[in-house]
Amino acid sequence: MSELRRDPVVNRWVIISDDPIRSPGIGQRSQELIDGDHCPFCPGNEHLCPPEILANRPPGSHPNDARWNLRVVPSRSPLLVVEEDLKRLGEGVYDKITGVGANEVIIETPRHGIRQAQMSTEELENVFWAYRDRIIDLRKDMRMRYVLIYKNCGAPAGATLDHMYSLLMALPIVPRGILDEIDGARRHFEYKQRCIYCDVIRQEMQLETRVVSETPLFLAIEPFAPRVPFETWILPKRHTSYFHEIEPKEVNEMARIFKDVISRLDSALDRPAYNYGIHTAPFGNEYGEYYHWHMKIIPRIATSTGFEWGSDVHINSTSPEEAAAFLRNLAV
Amino acid sequence: MSELRRDPVVNRWVIISDDPIRSPGIGQRSQELIDGDHCPFCPGNEHLCPPEILANRPPGSHPNDARWNLRVVPSRSPLLVVEEDLKRLGEGVYDKITGVGANEVIIETPRHGIRQAQMSTEELENVFWAYRDRIIDLRKDMRMRYVLIYKNCGAPAGATLDHMYSLLMALPIVPRGILDEIDGARRHFEYKQRCIYCDVIRQEMQLETRVVSETPLFLAIEPFAPRVPFETWILPKRHTSYFHEIEPKEVNEMARIFKDVISRLDSALDRPAYNYGIHTAPFGNEYGEYYHWHMKIIPRIATSTGFEWGSDVHINSTSPEEAAAFLRNLAV
Repeated sequence: MSELRRDPVVNRWVIISDDPIRSPGIGQRSQELIDGDHCPFCPGNEHLCPPEILANRPPGSHPNDARWNLRVVPSRSPLLVVEEDLKRLGEGVYDKITGVGANEVIIETPRHGIRQAQMSTEELENVFWAYRDRIIDLRKDMRMRYVLIYKNCGAPAGATLDHMYSLLMALPIVPRGILDEIDGARRHFEYKQRCIYCDVIRQEMQLETRVVSETPLFLAIEPFAPRVPFETWILPKRHTSYFHEIEPKEVNEMARIFKDVISRLDSALDRPAYNYGIHTAPFGNEYGEYYHWHMKIIPRIATSTGFEWGSDVHINSTSPEEAAAFLRNLAV
Repeated sequence: MSELRRDPVVNRWVIISDDPIRSPGIGQRSQELIDGDHCPFCPGNEHLCPPEILANRPPGSHPNDARWNLRVVPSRSPLLVVEEDLKRLGEGVYDKITGVGANEVIIETPRHGIRQAQMSTEELENVFWAYRDRIIDLRKDMRMRYVLIYKNCGAPAGATLDHMYSLLMALPIVPRGILDEIDGARRHFEYKQRCIYCDVIRQEMQLETRVVSETPLFLAIEPFAPRVPFETWILPKRHTSYFHEIEPKEVNEMARIFKDVISRLDSALDRPAYNYGIHTAPFGNEYGEYYHWHMKIIPRIATSTGFEWGSDVHINSTSPEEAAAFLRNLAV
């Protein structure tokens, strides 16, 4: 079984999966992407996946049949499973937790081989609704602390299929990447009595130099200190800590600004591999005042070196002002 | 000019270099490696590099001539330079620092195309002595807070040449990756009055399951919570915070255990790309009680995905116990 282990010095958890079947899978250098005929996410191949948890289907269709717009299925080889007992164990100076959690796949479209930029706004709305609905459902499991929703597009970003899907992992811990944001946002709030992300939105809207795209309810920017060229953030202008509190009008605008941004990145970087994550507050309701959900998009066009691995300082050869101007000026 | 910028939420600095010449360089997806004839690090091509800062030379040779065992030269296109004025600037919610620092290259051997596992113990000793000497020299610049020494071996790890070299960056900040270790080690010390790394060494020597190699003065282990398969740490058994306080006998043993470990990794993973970093205490002398220098080696055989980028939680498909047993049992 998998287990979660904490680094004894820094508060970083890893999931150790000692499953030889998994080795060529998640987190491994990707092999050839599987073609459409054998794709488990294509209509007609529903039997290659576990039964669906959630689906967007036309009237008259039935669960797990081939007529659907979007499906959510459990991972075929989950790292973490809900059936496991939650045990928190010590081992001398070390800490570990049994592999309790959930791994799900959001199959975003029946069409194999297209990219998100080619999906319709309506399809993308369905994707964001699915994210929301799965978070709301998984929050009921009191053993969980966080649901991370993320995307690997393209083999250099860790994708194993050329069929648009997002991944979801429910975890019995809060990931360090999120805790760091929570801590920073809380310090800013305690000191200034304001949300740091709201401050960023105000400053960026005023300056305009790092703005990529804007709608009445959303802002897309190149952040002030991007780790990689063309790192892009999408933030709701309304202060909301929890992604799952997104409102219907916001889902529509999120789909529109996301489609605009990802089309610009596809055009600027010649259809790059990319990752994104939905950064939302952990389970519980104490983060409302100071945390602000957002999406971070990471184009995978640079190679990290020993500098990044050792220091967590990043070298970025493209300034966000230059990247934003380039993206803004594209005709899409 | 380059500048250092701080993420407004988390304490992570990035170096923004708006230099178009650099784009295919550090931190970028590597192009073809340069061949031996045009390699700036080969004997006879000394004129392709700035004048040497330090060298290990046989008697009768002269600075910058072609007879040498090891050379340290400034980077040809430095990101950070000592000539810059140190200015710490605010910009609304943002913080930045002018690009003060130093970038140097340690050319480890005159022989093009060999790997570190093929270098002699004596050559590797020279490398570690060079690391030490450069840190001691750079500590004299009171504007600096840290010297990060790191290695990129192979294009997937960010190397641009098939000639063994290490990199050094002197920084006006302490990198977050190091600060996190300092904070964790201090918390452990305050609570237990012991060094966490010394505790790890004791526990690993007792258990033996994660030990890869050992000498009287050094221990090489697969850490309890490795981020990637075959992540390997080398630690001095003597509690020492500062790498530059390494003693002659330790330099010799460090070279020997490093050669053993890197030979095992080369054999186990078919000569992988890898990075390593020397994790040493920041400038100043207040870290002596609780920080413990060490080397972290990261084989680059896995692709990071949106999961790692969003969460800083890592998925590792090979347990350290399995990896350590495999490495230990190799005949090298």
